[in-house]
Amino acid sequence: MSAYLLECIDCGKRYPSNEAKYLCPSCGQSFQASQPLPGLLRCIYDYENLAKQFGPDVLAERSEKGLGRWAELIPLTSIKSLPPLIESATPLRPALKLGHILGLDDLWLKDDTGLPTASLKDRASAMVVACARERACKVVATASTGNAATALAGMAASVDLESVVFVPASAPPAKLAQIAVYGSRLIPIDGNYDQAFSLSIEACEEFDWYCRNTAYNPFTVEGKKTAALEIWEQLDYSVPDWIVVPTGDGVILAGIEKAFSDLAALNLIDRIPRLALVQASGCQPLVRAINEGREEIVPEVKPRSIADSIAVGVPRAGRWALKAISESRGAAIAVSDEEILEAMALLGRTTGIFAEPAAAASVAGVGKFLSKGIIKSDERVVALITGNGLKDVPAAMKAFTIPKPVESTIDAVRQFIKQGSR
Amino acid sequence: MSAYLLECIDCGKRYPSNEAKYLCPSCGQSFQASQPLPGLLRCIYDYENLAKQFGPDVLAERSEKGLGRWAELIPLTSIKSLPPLIESATPLRPALKLGHILGLDDLWLKDDTGLPTASLKDRASAMVVACARERACKVVATASTGNAATALAGMAASVDLESVVFVPASAPPAKLAQIAVYGSRLIPIDGNYDQAFSLSIEACEEFDWYCRNTAYNPFTVEGKKTAALEIWEQLDYSVPDWIVVPTGDGVILAGIEKAFSDLAALNLIDRIPRLALVQASGCQPLVRAINEGREEIVPEVKPRSIADSIAVGVPRAGRWALKAISESRGAAIAVSDEEILEAMALLGRTTGIFAEPAAAASVAGVGKFLSKGIIKSDERVVALITGNGLKDVPAAMKAFTIPKPVESTIDAVRQFIKQGSR
Repeated sequence: MSAYLLECIDCGKRYPSNEAKYLCPSCGQSFQASQPLPGLLRCIYDYENLAKQFGPDVLAERSEKGLGRWAELIPLTSIKSLPPLIESATPLRPALKLGHILGLDDLWLKDDTGLPTASLKDRASAMVVACARERACKVVATASTGNAATALAGMAASVDLESVVFVPASAPPAKLAQIAVYGSRLIPIDGNYDQAFSLSIEACEEFDWYCRNTAYNPFTVEGKKTAALEIWEQLDYSVPDWIVVPTGDGVILAGIEKAFSDLAALNLIDRIPRLALVQASGCQPLVRAINEGREEIVPEVKPRSIADSIAVGVPRAGRWALKAISESRGAAIAVSDEEILEAMALLGRTTGIFAEPAAAASVAGVGKFLSKGIIKSDERVVALITGNGLKDVPAAMKAFTIPKPVESTIDAVRQFIKQGSR
Repeated sequence: MSAYLLECIDCGKRYPSNEAKYLCPSCGQSFQASQPLPGLLRCIYDYENLAKQFGPDVLAERSEKGLGRWAELIPLTSIKSLPPLIESATPLRPALKLGHILGLDDLWLKDDTGLPTASLKDRASAMVVACARERACKVVATASTGNAATALAGMAASVDLESVVFVPASAPPAKLAQIAVYGSRLIPIDGNYDQAFSLSIEACEEFDWYCRNTAYNPFTVEGKKTAALEIWEQLDYSVPDWIVVPTGDGVILAGIEKAFSDLAALNLIDRIPRLALVQASGCQPLVRAINEGREEIVPEVKPRSIADSIAVGVPRAGRWALKAISESRGAAIAVSDEEILEAMALLGRTTGIFAEPAAAASVAGVGKFLSKGIIKSDERVVALITGNGLKDVPAAMKAFTIPKPVESTIDAVRQFIKQGSR
């Protein structure tokens, strides 16, 4: 359906879609496991032509609500290739009370916790699975901190495609359980995500598996960008002042940037939102690079954070992320595990949304950007809630003490209530 | 918006909506904790009038997609009273491959795993919270095996209402975590759900809390019935041959029955679907009553099942459930924990849906009804998937062995793959 070229974000060279697969054939030839990926490719559509046939009026007439809604802007021959699990846009929820507590008049939450496998990664996995089907690949594989793997496993299962996933053996049990239930071949790596990433690429080459690795596969960005396309439509085809993005590899951030870049190329928006990057204090290679004003990204050798999904020492899309922050006049901040847990509780009790630590980092980030005067109280802010808290219950429990069991008599209950325990 | 009377399902007496609150003022006066509730009330709308103003053509014009879509058939003054979290109908997914494996041509799954707190109970809790707001109640309380409590906690949090929940201290940790995150007052009872149920009613009276207890509060049925209204619309205003319902208290079953009873009263359907009730082998008081052809329900003193959500010894809406099965020419069956775990894995790998044990019981039930010739292979069947597997990961893990960690070298990976480990 949508023709595209692949453009290298480093050298700018463009390739017909069948002449490049993962990284730029020139810049990406030899990549090092310990460094951000060189030669990431981005899809370039025929914007001139599309501008004539795509816009709000076309969308208003369209009944398709899932990723297929963006048919003109995704790299598929047919939207029928998409797995059937995502049927609608995720909610963009106004968060009045939370905003007021944080000191913000106009806060919105893009709530991806209800996606089929309960994280935003479903968008990328759905897109890559669709691409795999169009290429008649029999097996799709990925390395993941957990969510991308569960998303791939679920999306592949829904269309009867085989999947193989490389995950740190230390990933939260819920994510491992999801992978097992979806019938994916799970390879728990005795190492961290960065090691799993390199291994999975080697294995894909050796066994001729289609590789979904984030950033490495250019269509992961095309999947993730749908979150921002939805935001644009949900805000009545307008752009917020800021979008706050919890960041590990940097691919969600790249996806958000790509969406607005596409919309600008179609003359559908006249400005892009400022992008606000949030990392965990224990793993902040991008925050450091941005706030120290350097282009070089120094990997974090020992990522430490309760927010496992963003504890990525080597941000694969690091250069794209830095560029997105710089070009959008964005900002970057790190939040501690304590701030993340506080934000998780605050989010839950003010909105009824249960976020996993990496997603709560987004809310913690909003508060911190405000207190530093980077985000202003009258600006319109959208924070991405990228994963469901049910994916890591042990992490959530660090923020709470479950009261001791109460004897099942009304006297005991009365006593308990009078004590005001929570 | 919608005027209604409350009718006792036992004596048939009707009351104006302000003259009864929970049970029938006559039949429900003295209920025993150890027995199904007497005097359950059902909402009777002005069907004659509504028939003139409600139907498929009205729905086709309506943009509201959440529970408010059913404005004419819910007991609210304004749909604005509903919490904002449920924005759309849940998917009704065709399950071709799963159907074929089970031996069924036309199987559909009503997938409620993506609701805001990840279970069907969100429907009842949203409705009761709306009713509480219209009555200016300050606190809503409930007893629950876990899901109803998490749903109440989440829905209440989203509209800044206080909630108190009574849950067995043995409930799955994920459900306790959700309750804590949503800021509800959690009272973990050193006892089972049946004890928590009685205690919570006493406490509601003493502290003047609005009681959400399932069945006891008539609006729980009105909330749950929206699942069936959605099924009717999603099947192009038609009725399947069977709806398969995992059953604890019997209130989901009552809700499904109520939806089709409402639609029949509006002359929008000319038959009702047959209802198929599934319980766990270790807690099957309703299955026993139905299959032994008796009206008396003998409570299960020691419910034992991996499917905690339906391990209810005293089915509160038991009489309503028996009636629904009998009037729909339905059927009942019990499934073992082993069958539930097998169904969970089968469902996951064929559809990409991760169900909690009680929800997987639905799929196990379909298989068993088929093998007994009760459901025929050419019938159209809808199975309810009532809760997300992430709510009880330890249960899921009983069905799987996570492979031992693999050394992070390509040699070790090669070895692992050659062994064909999963």
